[in-house]
Amino acid sequence: MIATEKPTKMITYESAGVNIEAGEEVVRRIKPLVRKTFNPNVLTDIGGFGGLYDARFPGMKQPVLVSSTDGVGTKIKVAIDAGKFDSVGHDLVNHCTNDILVCGAKPIFFLDYFASGKLHVEHGVSVVEGFVSGCLENNCALIGGETAEMPGIYAGDDFDLAGTIIGVVERDAIVSRENVREGDVLIGLRSNGLHTNGYSLARKALVEVLGVGAKPKELNGETIGEALLKVHRSYLAPVLSLFEKFSPREDIHSLSHITGGGIVGNTSRVLSAGLGLDIDWNSWKRPAIFDLIQKVGNVPEESMRKALNLGIGLIIIADASKATDMIDHLHASGEEPVLMGKVVKR
Amino acid sequence: MIATEKPTKMITYESAGVNIEAGEEVVRRIKPLVRKTFNPNVLTDIGGFGGLYDARFPGMKQPVLVSSTDGVGTKIKVAIDAGKFDSVGHDLVNHCTNDILVCGAKPIFFLDYFASGKLHVEHGVSVVEGFVSGCLENNCALIGGETAEMPGIYAGDDFDLAGTIIGVVERDAIVSRENVREGDVLIGLRSNGLHTNGYSLARKALVEVLGVGAKPKELNGETIGEALLKVHRSYLAPVLSLFEKFSPREDIHSLSHITGGGIVGNTSRVLSAGLGLDIDWNSWKRPAIFDLIQKVGNVPEESMRKALNLGIGLIIIADASKATDMIDHLHASGEEPVLMGKVVKR
Repeated sequence: MIATEKPTKMITYESAGVNIEAGEEVVRRIKPLVRKTFNPNVLTDIGGFGGLYDARFPGMKQPVLVSSTDGVGTKIKVAIDAGKFDSVGHDLVNHCTNDILVCGAKPIFFLDYFASGKLHVEHGVSVVEGFVSGCLENNCALIGGETAEMPGIYAGDDFDLAGTIIGVVERDAIVSRENVREGDVLIGLRSNGLHTNGYSLARKALVEVLGVGAKPKELNGETIGEALLKVHRSYLAPVLSLFEKFSPREDIHSLSHITGGGIVGNTSRVLSAGLGLDIDWNSWKRPAIFDLIQKVGNVPEESMRKALNLGIGLIIIADASKATDMIDHLHASGEEPVLMGKVVKR
Repeated sequence: MIATEKPTKMITYESAGVNIEAGEEVVRRIKPLVRKTFNPNVLTDIGGFGGLYDARFPGMKQPVLVSSTDGVGTKIKVAIDAGKFDSVGHDLVNHCTNDILVCGAKPIFFLDYFASGKLHVEHGVSVVEGFVSGCLENNCALIGGETAEMPGIYAGDDFDLAGTIIGVVERDAIVSRENVREGDVLIGLRSNGLHTNGYSLARKALVEVLGVGAKPKELNGETIGEALLKVHRSYLAPVLSLFEKFSPREDIHSLSHITGGGIVGNTSRVLSAGLGLDIDWNSWKRPAIFDLIQKVGNVPEESMRKALNLGIGLIIIADASKATDMIDHLHASGEEPVLMGKVVKR
């Protein structure tokens, strides 16, 4: 039988491409960073099989867990091209935070997945530093994670990330679509760039033409890599501040996080049946990076709107009678809100 | 400025490699499958920004959430080679279930991440079918997920998966290492193969030599691909059955899920300081696939023990006085438990 007659040269765990020492070194170096995100609700230490979190939620009557999993899409390829490993983890925590925030939930903990072909200690530590920054910004504990070494799947310095966030909301404070009605206004909060969507388009239209290091005059001294790698904004602070002053049901009828699918795709998902959007596309100025993508790649406006947030990262669908108060409140929190349209009958 | 002088041919969202229709088709087809995993605690429907789960846990005094994130490592490469996409998702749910089960927790919900270079509808649906099978087996809801299309990261039919499980345990039923003492016995529950660890070694030592389609006589008619792709066992049923009859503190002193690092690596993590393991490596017969890997790849025993579970997937560290009762109980549940060693002073 062939299987036994001709043994190959000796194969060990290490010669098969798995570097246990690198994995242990990453864990050693990230431990003190990760511990900075802990709070008294975290009942565990790093390195156990599972992350433990106290689920009593004192003061809440009907706590509801809200969870979301995501990746950063091909923004990761821009990070790899630019040799910048410390921001994509932060992007991912902020992205996930916004995804549960639009249900009304505050994040409590996060878990990360980081996979590469060959574990490079410095890259691994940088990636986790990004997760830690994101968790500190959004006040959630980095309670677990997995670092996978997968030779044969990821080439060169390529890697991928996934993250899962868990948050909690009082059941009667869940923001849902059921209160949206004709005449509600759309108040947009500004993005600082592409956030984490549309990078396949941006790479094809811009990066493959000019490269990440180019400094086109439209970007005022920034490179394309810098403009594309700006960290996805978290809207936790301005939205929580709104929740303190306005009712998440009567005043705030719905919230929309602008990700893949763009402004219309994402906001249509949070309308009741029979309603549509009337958007004034000229009511805000798009950040320069969007015009550059459109110009260099000769991208039709329809694709721009489908793939990109175009400068608006989160939309509040508000009762029209509260619009002025809400906009004033957002200005006072340092935002530059945009009254960008309204809900109409379809 | 170069950026504006020479527009390239028109780039659209679709020509950049993102196929929105394929993504929508996958969602349409998986919806009825995913819904089968729901229960009255799931307060959401598929397609919202976040998955909602009732966190009141009636009857529990101090509920603690236990969570874990993982991937299936390079087992995914074997699945790709064999063109089999429906089992790795099931592997992942079972793996995550075991990871929180060893803390004493029962799974409540799961979220998946599935990334490929170009979304192939049939592959995507198969992968989610695997997640659904795993969630049904472990009685947890598939509450969220992300399907990412990442041209430039994943080549050909390559893809990657990550999954996150959330479970719950009563605080005073958490299984922890603090009760382990000298003289405790190790009771092993059998694995059905490599589960999800050691595939870089197995591929190098076996797959690259013989191929996934080979049928070496040692495997009794099975192909190498079939033997390597057996679904990671979930130990939820036998361990919950133990919890009903034996105290998760006084009788069951610790539990160890045998993943990367092998029997010694994983079980050492759940011992108190100053204690070690005395394992009788001849107390069970290894499944044929392990002997084949060792023989064909000429793999030293030390690497075998570090990388592979060698036929034992979960270890119960039990009070010696309860060992016989526990083994009898496990036999009655259909297990073939192995009394494989004991805890010693180091």
